[in-house]
Amino acid sequence: MIILVGFLLFSFFSEFECSRPNILIMLMDDMGWGDLGVFGHPSKETPRLDQMASEGMLFPDFYTANPLCSPSRAALLTGRLPLRNGFYTTNAHARNGYTPQEIVGGISDRELLLSELLALAGYRNKIVGKWHLGHQAQYLPLKHGFHEWFGSSNCHFGPYNDKSTPNIPVFRNDEMIGRYYEDFQINRTTGESNLTILFTEEATSFIKKQAQAQQPFFLYWAPDATHAPVYASRSFLDKSERGLYGDAVRELDFSVGIILDTLWTTGVANNTLVFFTSDNGAALVSKIMGGSNGPFLCGKETTFEGGMREPAIAWWPGTIKPGQVSHQLGTVMDLFSTALDLAGVEPPSDRVIDGISLKSTFIDGKMTDRPVFYYRGNELMAVRLGFYKAHFWCWSNSWEELKQGIDFCPGEKVEGITSHQQMNYTTQPKIFHLGRDPGEKYTLNPKSKEYQKAKSAILEIVKEHKNNLTPGKPQLNWCDKAVMHWSPPGCKKLKRCLTPPSPKPYLCSWPH
Amino acid sequence: MIILVGFLLFSFFSEFECSRPNILIMLMDDMGWGDLGVFGHPSKETPRLDQMASEGMLFPDFYTANPLCSPSRAALLTGRLPLRNGFYTTNAHARNGYTPQEIVGGISDRELLLSELLALAGYRNKIVGKWHLGHQAQYLPLKHGFHEWFGSSNCHFGPYNDKSTPNIPVFRNDEMIGRYYEDFQINRTTGESNLTILFTEEATSFIKKQAQAQQPFFLYWAPDATHAPVYASRSFLDKSERGLYGDAVRELDFSVGIILDTLWTTGVANNTLVFFTSDNGAALVSKIMGGSNGPFLCGKETTFEGGMREPAIAWWPGTIKPGQVSHQLGTVMDLFSTALDLAGVEPPSDRVIDGISLKSTFIDGKMTDRPVFYYRGNELMAVRLGFYKAHFWCWSNSWEELKQGIDFCPGEKVEGITSHQQMNYTTQPKIFHLGRDPGEKYTLNPKSKEYQKAKSAILEIVKEHKNNLTPGKPQLNWCDKAVMHWSPPGCKKLKRCLTPPSPKPYLCSWPH
Repeated sequence: MIILVGFLLFSFFSEFECSRPNILIMLMDDMGWGDLGVFGHPSKETPRLDQMASEGMLFPDFYTANPLCSPSRAALLTGRLPLRNGFYTTNAHARNGYTPQEIVGGISDRELLLSELLALAGYRNKIVGKWHLGHQAQYLPLKHGFHEWFGSSNCHFGPYNDKSTPNIPVFRNDEMIGRYYEDFQINRTTGESNLTILFTEEATSFIKKQAQAQQPFFLYWAPDATHAPVYASRSFLDKSERGLYGDAVRELDFSVGIILDTLWTTGVANNTLVFFTSDNGAALVSKIMGGSNGPFLCGKETTFEGGMREPAIAWWPGTIKPGQVSHQLGTVMDLFSTALDLAGVEPPSDRVIDGISLKSTFIDGKMTDRPVFYYRGNELMAVRLGFYKAHFWCWSNSWEELKQGIDFCPGEKVEGITSHQQMNYTTQPKIFHLGRDPGEKYTLNPKSKEYQKAKSAILEIVKEHKNNLTPGKPQLNWCDKAVMHWSPPGCKKLKRCLTPPSPKPYLCSWPH
Repeated sequence: MIILVGFLLFSFFSEFECSRPNILIMLMDDMGWGDLGVFGHPSKETPRLDQMASEGMLFPDFYTANPLCSPSRAALLTGRLPLRNGFYTTNAHARNGYTPQEIVGGISDRELLLSELLALAGYRNKIVGKWHLGHQAQYLPLKHGFHEWFGSSNCHFGPYNDKSTPNIPVFRNDEMIGRYYEDFQINRTTGESNLTILFTEEATSFIKKQAQAQQPFFLYWAPDATHAPVYASRSFLDKSERGLYGDAVRELDFSVGIILDTLWTTGVANNTLVFFTSDNGAALVSKIMGGSNGPFLCGKETTFEGGMREPAIAWWPGTIKPGQVSHQLGTVMDLFSTALDLAGVEPPSDRVIDGISLKSTFIDGKMTDRPVFYYRGNELMAVRLGFYKAHFWCWSNSWEELKQGIDFCPGEKVEGITSHQQMNYTTQPKIFHLGRDPGEKYTLNPKSKEYQKAKSAILEIVKEHKNNLTPGKPQLNWCDKAVMHWSPPGCKKLKRCLTPPSPKPYLCSWPH
């Protein structure tokens, strides 16, 4: 009788597990499409990611939802464009905003996050690494569906002095346990930091725990070693032919390997969808300390391909056949829809969801026609439909910034396209064929039939899109030094609270 | 007794075969480093080449000897830099010359070609496709060690009128059998031509014949579908997302697959070294009808990485272990030295050979320190040593040409580097670290220790190189309309001879 019950329970769990796979999203920070060997980096220093691709499905046409970190991450977790979920600014036209520690806003309670929906469905959720959806207490991960967190709400900028500017706290769940540069070191001279090791251990111990508990999990692994200031742990320093940035890539590649190995050793590999991607294009502004966008134009902050096309690999042994390449146009918002689909959860029906489920793409190679929208702040800069990409607005950044050495397109110059003033091409968009011209160098002739046909189809899509668009309340307009990390949750217990200045809200400045 | 002799003969041949493998060099025409999936082309349209790489050894740091076709091909077959073997011009400084049908010169009898040396060692040699080492009778392949030829001495430009300019002949061995656009069609409107099919059939039938004859072979497979005017056969037209250029790449990829399959089916795969590469960087001047140089700067005609770094794969089942990447700096001239090494032939000792044998690299992954010299015509433009590349001269092409729309670096602009006048940096070379900066965008600071160290090491190499350099007689100085293809060998038999004009030599014009 006991044996029979055990057997039935086992059957139940087996079926239960199979029907609700674990979801593991690996989101890199500022890593470029061209940083992986499998996407052509000449150094070929990512053996584990290349292997992951050869065992799974590679997506060369996968996009983020915004060429900057916070809006991209908000889009991933809500399945919605930043203009809908509030991760944009109206302070100036077509400017990217994010969540520095002066930001007042964050993810709205009205948004439904993937973590919240999966939690309701019985998943155990953990975020490891960077959150970036607002750092005031009400915005933190454990308020939005995550059960566990190790990481930080912001970029690891610093060191600060804790007087005019506090150092960024590191959290364990809903309380700070220390600060960068104080308790969690990043050596700005050598680039040494063991953070990727910590982030990897957090991931593997969570996987082991969940495998033991036989409870499905959602692990959002968001290390930030390739975001400035770039870092790697000691054993990876000076190992890459690419310098420190390459050291960071090598360590992340190694860590991906460790995590995939852990899925195997814990027996859950066949029941876990792993999706690897990045939050935006490589930060070419960082020059040799930034990544590579391969053959694509410009980088982070821009709506050219280099700013928004991301490395992407789906891996799910036994379900996704090895060695596949899918040219499905995908976006980070699809990870929301796909994860819900796999978990058997209905997506919210009371709002527009921009993601689509890639489940059939993973399993049967299904291709779905869908547009990709390239937003920069509050402006729809460009749209891709099939191979055609129409730019309505073009610019990289201002002349003033360029003169200060801030260049999002170093070594690149396409007349009228990589412009330093906002060029409005709404009435006659600049159209590229990304198959023949992935580098966006040769605009189609507006008099050609091909141009006319592409323009009509895209304008139709834009019309429908705009008709269906209710912008969320912009979260990235207001800044205030009083909201900085003076007294994060948990600081009292540690006796590490700092004294904030009086509130003095001001409109955030978003130069690009 | 008969059985015993048979057995002994078989043993002898087996050993003989193993010690002298077949050599198959696949040389593409204007194909870029970034055109292959394995080197990161977003279309991922080269499944057979990607498979070849996964079964063999990939060389991301492999170079040609000149950023233009004829000198590159002369270097491959002689193992010597074009400045030594005569494939350069002194008509103007730092200009690339080649062998159009007006050229008077060609490969000198004083050069020893790989084909000649392998013929002496008992190999059967065939060239399929483009020769490009001179087209007057004394320069043709069968005068230089090849036993068989199907292809042409020149580019497939045309159609011409056979009055002011004759169409280019196609040869079978030492006689013409027809002309392009007359007997061998290339549809300039649709891009259709079945030439790649013919070149592939020539390769496979030769392999079959040699496998049957149990005689080692050297097959130099040099199709030209990716050189302007680009073409593909009917079943490949409109198949690529990249347009006609991509169709040509797909067909070549397919053909590579057919040839490798033939090595397997004839039982000689394990005894054949196959090396795939290209003659120079992608012709970016052709815009969307040209290839991709991936993340590298500029293209064909230039001595930036995009002009001279080539896709390269070594394949030799059972000898080269699968799935390897070698960062050995290699050059097309190494194919000369490597082939001789594998055939057990001593390289000529009476002249400088610039190639090195890659045999130990193939077998044991051995790395050899060696420089790469970037020549443009008669000028040493740059040198790579380790990761450091020093430019002594920089330019892409002239302002006059640029104004005519001839651009070797479209969409790219690096101050002082992609210049339109010849910039002399001999006293203080522009130095790049190609590991951290493969795109040659960020010069090292001349005041840095790193710069000083790299400069000293490279200048030492240059001094040694120049001390040891005896230029060959320049073959690319003189042109004459009288030497055009009016009456190629074999024309009488076909009654297809045309009447040449009177000889009127003139200095060839080499604008870039």
